[in-house]
Amino acid sequence: MAAPAKPTRIGLAGLAVMGQNLALNIAEKGFPISVYNRTTSKVDETVERAKVEGDLPLYGFHDPESFVQSIQKPRVIIMLVKAGAPVDQTIKTLSAYLEKGDCIIDGGNEWYENTERREKAMAELGLLYLGMGVSGGEEGARNGPSLMPGGSFEAFKNIEDILVKVAAQVPDSGPCVTYIGKGGSGNFVKMIHNGIEYGDMQLIAEAYDVLRSVGKLSNEELHQVFSEWNKGELLSFLIEITADIFSIKDDKADGYLVDKVLDKTGMKGTGKWTVQQAADLSVAAPTIASSLDARFLSGLKEERVEAAKVFGSGLSDVLVPQEVDKAKLIDDVRQALYASKICSYAQGMNLIRAKSNEKGWDLKLGELARIWKGGCIIRAVFLDRIKRAYDRNPDLANLLVDPEFAKEIVERQSAWRRVVCLAINSGISTPGMSSSLAYFDSYRRERLPANLVQAQRDYFGAHTYERTDVEGSFHTEWFKIAKQLKN
Amino acid sequence: MAAPAKPTRIGLAGLAVMGQNLALNIAEKGFPISVYNRTTSKVDETVERAKVEGDLPLYGFHDPESFVQSIQKPRVIIMLVKAGAPVDQTIKTLSAYLEKGDCIIDGGNEWYENTERREKAMAELGLLYLGMGVSGGEEGARNGPSLMPGGSFEAFKNIEDILVKVAAQVPDSGPCVTYIGKGGSGNFVKMIHNGIEYGDMQLIAEAYDVLRSVGKLSNEELHQVFSEWNKGELLSFLIEITADIFSIKDDKADGYLVDKVLDKTGMKGTGKWTVQQAADLSVAAPTIASSLDARFLSGLKEERVEAAKVFGSGLSDVLVPQEVDKAKLIDDVRQALYASKICSYAQGMNLIRAKSNEKGWDLKLGELARIWKGGCIIRAVFLDRIKRAYDRNPDLANLLVDPEFAKEIVERQSAWRRVVCLAINSGISTPGMSSSLAYFDSYRRERLPANLVQAQRDYFGAHTYERTDVEGSFHTEWFKIAKQLKN
Repeated sequence: MAAPAKPTRIGLAGLAVMGQNLALNIAEKGFPISVYNRTTSKVDETVERAKVEGDLPLYGFHDPESFVQSIQKPRVIIMLVKAGAPVDQTIKTLSAYLEKGDCIIDGGNEWYENTERREKAMAELGLLYLGMGVSGGEEGARNGPSLMPGGSFEAFKNIEDILVKVAAQVPDSGPCVTYIGKGGSGNFVKMIHNGIEYGDMQLIAEAYDVLRSVGKLSNEELHQVFSEWNKGELLSFLIEITADIFSIKDDKADGYLVDKVLDKTGMKGTGKWTVQQAADLSVAAPTIASSLDARFLSGLKEERVEAAKVFGSGLSDVLVPQEVDKAKLIDDVRQALYASKICSYAQGMNLIRAKSNEKGWDLKLGELARIWKGGCIIRAVFLDRIKRAYDRNPDLANLLVDPEFAKEIVERQSAWRRVVCLAINSGISTPGMSSSLAYFDSYRRERLPANLVQAQRDYFGAHTYERTDVEGSFHTEWFKIAKQLKN
Repeated sequence: MAAPAKPTRIGLAGLAVMGQNLALNIAEKGFPISVYNRTTSKVDETVERAKVEGDLPLYGFHDPESFVQSIQKPRVIIMLVKAGAPVDQTIKTLSAYLEKGDCIIDGGNEWYENTERREKAMAELGLLYLGMGVSGGEEGARNGPSLMPGGSFEAFKNIEDILVKVAAQVPDSGPCVTYIGKGGSGNFVKMIHNGIEYGDMQLIAEAYDVLRSVGKLSNEELHQVFSEWNKGELLSFLIEITADIFSIKDDKADGYLVDKVLDKTGMKGTGKWTVQQAADLSVAAPTIASSLDARFLSGLKEERVEAAKVFGSGLSDVLVPQEVDKAKLIDDVRQALYASKICSYAQGMNLIRAKSNEKGWDLKLGELARIWKGGCIIRAVFLDRIKRAYDRNPDLANLLVDPEFAKEIVERQSAWRRVVCLAINSGISTPGMSSSLAYFDSYRRERLPANLVQAQRDYFGAHTYERTDVEGSFHTEWFKIAKQLKN
């Protein structure tokens, strides 16, 4: 293997597809890069790809020591290995050869607290550490991902020039990278990004479900509808690939491939973490939670088949097929999807702010919207509106009350309510859209029925209550008074 | 203070109201009891109450050593102190004087893993340990709670005679106590009980909201309605106290007290844990999750007041007041509440089973329904149906598909759908009822739109998919094919 004539600018360890692609991307941007992988065949594979894809300045190493020593000081090494124990193992291997001031960057979907633990441990060795969210999948890694580096600011400055070039470039808003903040903030923000992605995917699936099951649209029509939607306010990577999906014929049998895909959705943990963090932070995130539940329920395929038999005939008298105007339905569903999406992003942004406040990270929500505009899975023109909303008011309590979003919701709410009720009366569940609507209707409600719940808590547990008219904390002997009233 | 003539049968440490009441209950059942509290005035208070409430065999101690030594061997001491560090502190204090074979029982709402950690640590000292869920609030503790002891079976046998007498007694189904299972199972089951309680309270609040906001029922009418409901299938402690609440006039101003209670609901952690465990166990529990979210949103009173201003006028053209037939609405809401309740309990029971499987606890779901029939906050005739469902089929995949419940849901689903849509079209959120309905409509669905989500995951992340017609795991180059189709 050719050795570099002089030290390389950066190293990358962990050469699964994501790692290979990111390394090739970095080399292509003109930064000589050293690469290493424990299974050495992956090293050779990457070197070969670098040759084929344009004789890129990429150098492979079969042992960690010569890998580390091939990099210029202060060294920077990006790891792209599985979260958890493999990260600890890789750090151990590499840090044996690192020197004071060198830096390791974890580019995986790591739990933010692990990053904070490692950053501390590394600091004790005089080493720097970053936890960097990388979004965009394999394609993004190769051609420009969205990068969310958090941790040591000094380390960030050491590689800012590389990240700015490697990240996705969006006209008028720049490269999709920014220094997120201290500690595990980069991982945390990437986790919420994924939670939002869960929400987006679920809402699109519900739109598909209503159009297909109630509107009886064919795959050809669905392809047309999503292609059309991708020209307007919903323009986004996920809408685009959805349109693509409906165009693809099955290569094994007649018909379209999407109809042959089993209705079971996998998951890898970040959605679960988002929902658990929401509970920890006391932030309602029902759209995201319903998308996680939808994945859980999709997994119960065998139970669902049995349940469908149990309820098969019993529901038919209620769920009469609805007469629908196709064009009107399509327009309604588009509006319902858009309004629900606002709720979902409002939840995600509020999760980030709540955590930022808790940890003192001082995260800039508008800036996050900006770096999600390209490269990542949730990239969309929609994010521009979010950025503008936070530009208008960085302390915005909730995206829903931003004047522009509020106006858009008001305009779409009739359609939104129609779609959810149509689904309910057709026996189709739209958990994402209906929980988004309930979120909106709860958030905009001056007086919720929570007074009753608090009265109940005071009745059986003496938990006290506040009053609407007088300051203070009160307790009533509800049981005694009610007993007297009964006698 | 009078010393016992011979060793007492049991001890209780921690004399806040719950502890006092449980100690008095035990003494009243004929078991001489020693009591202790760090703040000694609480000891004297309890001794005084024991005298007043019938010269009960209760003996107070101001120091832990004489307290422990007053109890017959093997000693059993129930702790009722705040979960977390205070429990560890109390264990440390008491165990200094305990001997091999003695037992400590934690009666608080403790996180189950803490109980498992303590049980292990105690075992190393030759001591036994139980984590015992106690439900029923102050009143239950005094007159008969529902008890959920888990941990050392030997310890349980040592005090079974006491627990059986102290627990609530329900005609035809016996005392509300059973040995739950090993480790932290008693705490876990109590945690889920509380999650279910959150769900019940939220669903009742939504019923109240629809009846009040759409049906324009007065508090007098609400009192009548809930009193009536409490004679039928909804008969339960929570419906009973809800009826009571609507009957109580404000003592500070005109009108009814419930209208003066601020619409902010507090919480103490078990609901949050339930939702987080659901995510961990991959079990959908949207009804319980929506009740937690409703509490979070209730806490944002100031934000809601502002949001109400933003949306105040913009929605009025859509949310026209609905013409409703009051009697029909009341009947519909009752049915919607009942059907939603089935979904909520199905979720709670499935959470317990999933954890039982994970931990090898071998929990008996029907037996849990039995011990919740009295004493606790969720006590209801409804639990009899759940017990019967699991008696019919201990391996029931979901309460929804039990023949009796399935029939009840089918009968009520028109009303259920009407109520949720009425709420949506009135701008009232019913997150618990609508997420329950979405849960039902997802669970009974043979084919969900999850195929699209999985296709998307395979498109951008090469996560692969299964097919409906052929075994195996597949990956498609969606992007390449779609690109070819476009050219």
